[in-house]
Amino acid sequence: MQIAMIQDKIVPADELESAYLDRGIYFGDGVYEVLRSYDGKIFALEEHLARFANSLAAIGIAGVDIGLIRSRVQKAFDTAGISNAKIYFHITRGSAPRKHTFDAALKPNFFLTVMELPDDKEIKANGIAVSTHPDWRWKRCDIKSLNLLANVLARANAAEKGCAEAILVNEQGRITEGAGSAFFAIFGQTLQTSALTANVLPSITRKFAIKAGKNVGLELIEKSLTPQQATDADELFIAVTTKDIVPVVRFDGKLISDGKPGKYTKSLIWEFRSFTV
Amino acid sequence: MQIAMIQDKIVPADELESAYLDRGIYFGDGVYEVLRSYDGKIFALEEHLARFANSLAAIGIAGVDIGLIRSRVQKAFDTAGISNAKIYFHITRGSAPRKHTFDAALKPNFFLTVMELPDDKEIKANGIAVSTHPDWRWKRCDIKSLNLLANVLARANAAEKGCAEAILVNEQGRITEGAGSAFFAIFGQTLQTSALTANVLPSITRKFAIKAGKNVGLELIEKSLTPQQATDADELFIAVTTKDIVPVVRFDGKLISDGKPGKYTKSLIWEFRSFTV
Repeated sequence: MQIAMIQDKIVPADELESAYLDRGIYFGDGVYEVLRSYDGKIFALEEHLARFANSLAAIGIAGVDIGLIRSRVQKAFDTAGISNAKIYFHITRGSAPRKHTFDAALKPNFFLTVMELPDDKEIKANGIAVSTHPDWRWKRCDIKSLNLLANVLARANAAEKGCAEAILVNEQGRITEGAGSAFFAIFGQTLQTSALTANVLPSITRKFAIKAGKNVGLELIEKSLTPQQATDADELFIAVTTKDIVPVVRFDGKLISDGKPGKYTKSLIWEFRSFTV
Repeated sequence: MQIAMIQDKIVPADELESAYLDRGIYFGDGVYEVLRSYDGKIFALEEHLARFANSLAAIGIAGVDIGLIRSRVQKAFDTAGISNAKIYFHITRGSAPRKHTFDAALKPNFFLTVMELPDDKEIKANGIAVSTHPDWRWKRCDIKSLNLLANVLARANAAEKGCAEAILVNEQGRITEGAGSAFFAIFGQTLQTSALTANVLPSITRKFAIKAGKNVGLELIEKSLTPQQATDADELFIAVTTKDIVPVVRFDGKLISDGKPGKYTKSLIWEFRSFTV
C-alpha cells in the first residue's frame, strides 16, 4: 500500500490532500510576486503582473490567464479591506506524486495572502544596518521563483549580526543585490546600482527608485559595486516593494557618512511617495 | 481582515491549514532524502540519516531527533509492506506567515511517502540517453535542499530531447553531476567522477559505486569531466538511489563506444547488487 506520513501520522497516499503533493514544496517549482497598497490603492499592479507572466514563461508554466490573476488580486484586496496591505501570491506547477518530470496537463496551484504591512516610519527615519553574505543563489535570479533558501540563510545571518538585510556578494567580489531588495549607492550626484543581468531580479521598486533619482537630478550608473566601494559611498539605500526606499546607515559595521539617512535618499523617499498617490 | 485565497476561494488567514503556511513552499526552506529498499530491506539507512543530519545542521534546523526519524521511516516502510519501495522524506523549518526571517521556536514539519519503485530492468539492460544542460543550481549543492527548480528545468529540457537525465555543466565548462544522479566515466581501467566540492551532492550511491569500482579493479580519479571527455569515454553511467547504476549509451546525441552498456558497467551493476542483499 502506498502511504504517506505527516509528522507521526500515517495516511493512505490516495487520501493525501493536494497541498502535500504540491510541486512547490517538493521542488520550489513555482513563481511569486509581492505587491503593496498605499492608502487603499494597489501600487504598480500591471508591472507586477507583467513580471509574473515572464516568470511563468521562463519556467514553462503555460495557460495561466493573467486577467484572471488580476481579478483575483483585486477581489482579495477588496475583501480584506486593508488600506496599507502586503499582497503575496504564487503559482506552482501543480500537485502530483513527487518526480522531477511533470505532465504538461497538470493544473497550476494559485495561492494568495493579504496581510497588514508593518509600520516603516522608524526605519525610514533612522535607516537600517546591513551586512554582506556570499551570494549562494541559483543562476537565474531574473526569475522570481520559490527557490529562496539562499536568501533565507543570508537574511538569518544578517539577523544574527543585528542587521535588517543581507547584501549579496558574488564570486567575483561584487554586490548583486540584497536578499530581498535592490541595493543602491550615491556618490556625489551619481546613483549606482547593479545592471539587470541574469543574476539580478528585475525589481519594480528599483525601476521607480531610478525614476525618482532622475527626477531629483541624479545621474544613473548601472554597474555592480564592491563592498569597499559601498562603504565609501556618500549614501546607501535599499529598494523593496513592501517599504519602497529605506536608508542604509551602516554597512558591515561601518557607518556610512555621518550615520544618518542622506539628503538624496530623503528626497527619493518623498519623490517615491508622489508615484503612489 | 487578513485573508488568503486558494485558487478562487477566499479563506480567513487564521483558518488556513498549516500546509499552506509551510516555509517549504514559500522558500524551499527544508531538506530531504530518498531511500530505497531491495527485497524488503531498506538500503543504506544509516548513511542517509547521517547525510540528513548534516543537511539539517547546514541550514540551521535544530532539535530534530534522528532516532525518531529512523523509527518513523521503519514504521512507514513496515506499514506499506512494499518489497521494492522508494521512501521519500523531508523536514521543513515549519509553518508560519511568510517572512524570510524565522522564529527559532518554530516546530519543523516532517513529511514522508512510501511508493512502489518502477521496474528498471529495461534501462539497466539497454542503457539511457542523456543530454547536457547549464548547471543553474545554487552554490550549496552539498546540502540536499528543497530548492530544486534548476534540476526540474534541466530534466524537462532533457525529456524534450528524449533523454532520461540531464548532465549539468558549470560555467567553467565542466560536468558537476546529473540533475538527479552522480555521473561516472570509465577510460580503460580508470573510473572518473567529480570530486565532492561545495557544488556536488555527497551522493551515497556514488560512494557505493566507487566501492564497487575498487572491487572490480578500477582505479578512481576524482576530477570533473568536460562534455567532450565524456563523449570520448569507453563507458558512462549514472548512479542514483532509486536505480543504483544505470548505463549511459548516448551523450548529447553521440553513441558511447558501440552504444551498448559497457563490460565494467555491467560488472558494477552486479557488484552493487551484492551490497544490497
